[in-house]
Amino acid sequence: MISQTMVGLGKKRSVIREIFEYSKVRAAEIGAENIFDFSIGNPSVPPPQIISDTLKELLDQEDSVSLHGYTSAQGDPATRKAIADDLNRRYGTDFTANNFYMTVGAAASLSICFKALALPEDEFIVFAPYFTEYRVFVEAAGGTLVEVPPREPDFQIDFDAFSAAVSEHTKAVIVNSPNNPSGVVYSESTVKELCRVLEEKSAQYGHTIYLISDEPYRELVYDDNIVVPFLTKYYKNTLVCYSYSKSLSLPGERIGYVLVPSEIDDFEDMYAAVCGAGRALGYVCAPSLFQKLIARCVGQVSDISVYRKNRDLLYNGLTERGYQCVRPDGAFYLFVKALEEDTNAFCERAKKYELLLVPGDDFGCPGYVRIAYCVTTEQIERSMPAFEALAKEYGLG
Amino acid sequence: MISQTMVGLGKKRSVIREIFEYSKVRAAEIGAENIFDFSIGNPSVPPPQIISDTLKELLDQEDSVSLHGYTSAQGDPATRKAIADDLNRRYGTDFTANNFYMTVGAAASLSICFKALALPEDEFIVFAPYFTEYRVFVEAAGGTLVEVPPREPDFQIDFDAFSAAVSEHTKAVIVNSPNNPSGVVYSESTVKELCRVLEEKSAQYGHTIYLISDEPYRELVYDDNIVVPFLTKYYKNTLVCYSYSKSLSLPGERIGYVLVPSEIDDFEDMYAAVCGAGRALGYVCAPSLFQKLIARCVGQVSDISVYRKNRDLLYNGLTERGYQCVRPDGAFYLFVKALEEDTNAFCERAKKYELLLVPGDDFGCPGYVRIAYCVTTEQIERSMPAFEALAKEYGLG
Repeated sequence: MISQTMVGLGKKRSVIREIFEYSKVRAAEIGAENIFDFSIGNPSVPPPQIISDTLKELLDQEDSVSLHGYTSAQGDPATRKAIADDLNRRYGTDFTANNFYMTVGAAASLSICFKALALPEDEFIVFAPYFTEYRVFVEAAGGTLVEVPPREPDFQIDFDAFSAAVSEHTKAVIVNSPNNPSGVVYSESTVKELCRVLEEKSAQYGHTIYLISDEPYRELVYDDNIVVPFLTKYYKNTLVCYSYSKSLSLPGERIGYVLVPSEIDDFEDMYAAVCGAGRALGYVCAPSLFQKLIARCVGQVSDISVYRKNRDLLYNGLTERGYQCVRPDGAFYLFVKALEEDTNAFCERAKKYELLLVPGDDFGCPGYVRIAYCVTTEQIERSMPAFEALAKEYGLG
Repeated sequence: MISQTMVGLGKKRSVIREIFEYSKVRAAEIGAENIFDFSIGNPSVPPPQIISDTLKELLDQEDSVSLHGYTSAQGDPATRKAIADDLNRRYGTDFTANNFYMTVGAAASLSICFKALALPEDEFIVFAPYFTEYRVFVEAAGGTLVEVPPREPDFQIDFDAFSAAVSEHTKAVIVNSPNNPSGVVYSESTVKELCRVLEEKSAQYGHTIYLISDEPYRELVYDDNIVVPFLTKYYKNTLVCYSYSKSLSLPGERIGYVLVPSEIDDFEDMYAAVCGAGRALGYVCAPSLFQKLIARCVGQVSDISVYRKNRDLLYNGLTERGYQCVRPDGAFYLFVKALEEDTNAFCERAKKYELLLVPGDDFGCPGYVRIAYCVTTEQIERSMPAFEALAKEYGLG
């Protein structure tokens, strides 16, 4: 009598949540320091000091009625202008406040874009491996998710598979670079080819195919030579979904935006549809205090040097021991080939060594495991003998 | 090619927003002090001092990674327990943390409940006058809104009209007491009769009809003898949608909850459906810092004595001048009978005296205007000659 789809979504624990619960139980048994929990993709470095300082400054200086009051639905104009200015400085774009709609984080940004776009029978294409909540959001908006299989071992795009997946029903393509769970950043040549195919297929089917760029990890890249292409510069029909969860270590505060570039087809309608979708989903405005924080702290990033150190230690340590893995350029994940065909069996065997890994099946990519390295460096150092022992079981190392 | 429903929702400015824009233009012309803008239902009293103090305390004392980190989807357990304890103390209930799902404000709470409940062909009943965004949220969830005409002049429930509106398709009934826009509080006898009809109709149609109580104004009542009945005590199949926007003057921060009582039919499924709907709509968790604030400040209320003073001044002033109006027991609105049949014409005439009122048409109740008295007392005092002059145009006073 009530929505069984919603009951199902509420009851089905995610695999990651199952591991998290197991981790708590196991920690109580043998001590947290003896568990190597690599399951959770939660920022482990604190927000920059300026975040706390600025929040206190706002509380001291601003009139509390307006500080905590409603902003307009699209967000505080000063916040949106600050974000536009920052992106323009970094990417040579020319956005204004009117290109932004502030949201309650990236999940909201994505849900709003899907709701704004989706008509019955619409398909949304995603590249494996991918964050599985995409399916939940797309289906809630009435669309269908279409998976393109991964290109191994580098996890760029398999363009033959992609072309085959596009149909007259394709409404949009979702990309996530730096990627969860692979850590891979799409190269400029990947981006250019992707956009070329999008142009071609849009012309072929006589309607726009949108590109939705989910980029909460944009600033989490670890080498100077790695550039994360800014997609609106390559393809005008791009919607950018951003969140400050990772760059400022504020995942619980739910603050982000949708960027609608002026050159998108029918800008006025598209921006209105984003506003309308936010309204329809019950998003009145993004949290006011944190909007005002962003206006003052835009461009700041948490100290991500720990993630870089962790990545290097883990990538080098594992590959030296015989594991196969694409070197991640960004995000805080390593996507490692399982040492046997049955990924779940591999993860179970890893548990014997107290290594908690997430099967790639959960990301549409069986045969791999995700290792979230947003943990202490010490945990990585102490886990190495466990990874070594696990490899030896499979005759490696 | 994109959702025209969403484009429409994004483009259609609300009547209140139109008035707000007019107000800004007019203020630039003749000075803000000469405009009597009664259009916006925004708290005008500041949050209690403890809010700012506690936020700073949390920033100083708590580990920033966990302070700003994800909470579980249903919300921080300590926050939910604090809310349960507070309600139990005030209403003699016996809720636990497990009865609560924290949300990004009442609009989110409502959207989540509708999404959790709605199946194709489901109808949701609402009593005029009502907050018109209900229609947007119900339709976004795939349901149909059914309006019951108002009972005049007291705006309690017209039970004949209500009974006639209930059908085999009725999934839920929405109530909002204290009410926006009438300020009316449902009496206990109204509540008892409502619940009796709900029991009877549930039995008649062989399925549960849920009661959804939207109560952001619960604490905004102005007389000691006015009790706002706590609906889960009268009807077990009640979902309560609450927000701290009004009670703590935090409308922009988006913090509230859904309360699912244990005695509701199939509690486990219902609670799961609420969690599932929150997940499907892209609500990951309620803002973390404000959840932790609520855990420490539950039970606090802004100083609402200004609203009481405003209500008395305005109600007495208008009725003395010949206006007809139900005396509002709560919220911060007065719902006044227009002095001519065409409400919009009446509002236009009021504009001549710089009085900005919202036509009741916008609340499913033509023939009335809403006056939001969450303004300065001085504005009310200075507006009296304008109301008097307006009344005189119609031969009153």
